[in-house]
Amino acid sequence: MPTVRLDLAYDGTEFRGWARQRDQRTVQGVLEESLERILRARPRLSVAGRTDAGVHARGQVASFLSQGEVDVERLRRAVNGMLSPEVVVLRASVAPSGFDARRSATGREYRYRIEIGHVSDPFTARFVWHRPGALSLVRMRIAARDLVGSHDFASFCRSPGAGATTIRDLQRMAVSRSGERVEITARANAFLHQMVRSLVGTLVAVGAGDLDPGSMEQILRARSRAAAGPVAPAHGLTLERVTYGRVSRRAGRR
Amino acid sequence: MPTVRLDLAYDGTEFRGWARQRDQRTVQGVLEESLERILRARPRLSVAGRTDAGVHARGQVASFLSQGEVDVERLRRAVNGMLSPEVVVLRASVAPSGFDARRSATGREYRYRIEIGHVSDPFTARFVWHRPGALSLVRMRIAARDLVGSHDFASFCRSPGAGATTIRDLQRMAVSRSGERVEITARANAFLHQMVRSLVGTLVAVGAGDLDPGSMEQILRARSRAAAGPVAPAHGLTLERVTYGRVSRRAGRR
Repeated sequence: MPTVRLDLAYDGTEFRGWARQRDQRTVQGVLEESLERILRARPRLSVAGRTDAGVHARGQVASFLSQGEVDVERLRRAVNGMLSPEVVVLRASVAPSGFDARRSATGREYRYRIEIGHVSDPFTARFVWHRPGALSLVRMRIAARDLVGSHDFASFCRSPGAGATTIRDLQRMAVSRSGERVEITARANAFLHQMVRSLVGTLVAVGAGDLDPGSMEQILRARSRAAAGPVAPAHGLTLERVTYGRVSRRAGRR
Repeated sequence: MPTVRLDLAYDGTEFRGWARQRDQRTVQGVLEESLERILRARPRLSVAGRTDAGVHARGQVASFLSQGEVDVERLRRAVNGMLSPEVVVLRASVAPSGFDARRSATGREYRYRIEIGHVSDPFTARFVWHRPGALSLVRMRIAARDLVGSHDFASFCRSPGAGATTIRDLQRMAVSRSGERVEITARANAFLHQMVRSLVGTLVAVGAGDLDPGSMEQILRARSRAAAGPVAPAHGLTLERVTYGRVSRRAGRR
């Protein structure tokens, strides 16, 4: 039973997120349906990043165990024929034995895009949060620096599972600006539910002067949703990349 | 009665083109309706480029005669509050007396975007024609060069008005490539109906090897729609810029 890996990009605007839900149009749902039509068996997809409703992906990774041999190039073309351009299989490949898109992933990188000018750009509006008004990058970078590291991110998480750990390793939190576009890049081993959007909303509150740049440690310690800034809207967020650095080594040891 | 000039950008995907039509959602229709709500009088918009259904604009210009004084900055914000981000007023200004967005325009520049790779990009798919397969830029440039100049473009026009001239001055026809993106820029004093998309469809046929690069003169001479290549899809086309070079001089002479 070969494991098939799918590298995906999608415009999340018209989906209720990744995860399959009854009577809702989701990315997992439409993908599994199209795979079922092609393979004559419904696969169960594992995914690196369970994106929320309205969130996009440029470098999502999913995998499934196939019942038999698969011509991955034909599979890629067939799925794209059904779902493109909203959802696109960038690459389909046979993965090393034991590979699982979610469990094997060692890092996820998201980017959040903000337009700060007074007019929104119709050509990027589906993927960029239009929030007119100045933002201080100096302030945002001070706060971002204090968020990097291994912390309990409960304050930046919507409804963690009971008993589940809320400790994550935030490896990178970078703020950049080009013209009237501000971009925030966040990379971690894994993220909690709505964590990136909570981090972004908090940094934006800092940049706008509504929160103190030195207050991040205090917010982390509070372990309460109420301590952090508001959650930034979904449509500005894109899953850019998933890394599997340690997987190949593990696979090699078997 | 001041003349108000509106510089506009829009995503044409969900519109039946610029020109108002009964029971159809058009850019002119939604703009005139929102202006009427703000100004308490319905203006009649003149426009530089009457874009077709599905065609976009990044630098469209419209104008209207106002019944009274207008606070253009307030007008801009009010319209954007109603129509953004699909339609955006980039700038609203009081134009020189006698200015008319359509009649005063001396040049229009369109850009057509083509993705030639095997997968479409979900982030640009609304504005780019996905046409997988190689295109020879050398061949396309030979043909483009023969199209530049003042010619009778009847072969590249859908249903010209009876008796109306089909002579236009094509000032620029450039083909460029970056990665798997091919872009065709066309600038003329004015364009006939579907002229840019007919020129693009013909150049693509030349680039794909279906038409001879040296056949442009013959196609122009034929003065027949059937002689040219197919019409490229609307969604790859964007009106980029309108020029009013001679207008200010004329206005100065009055």
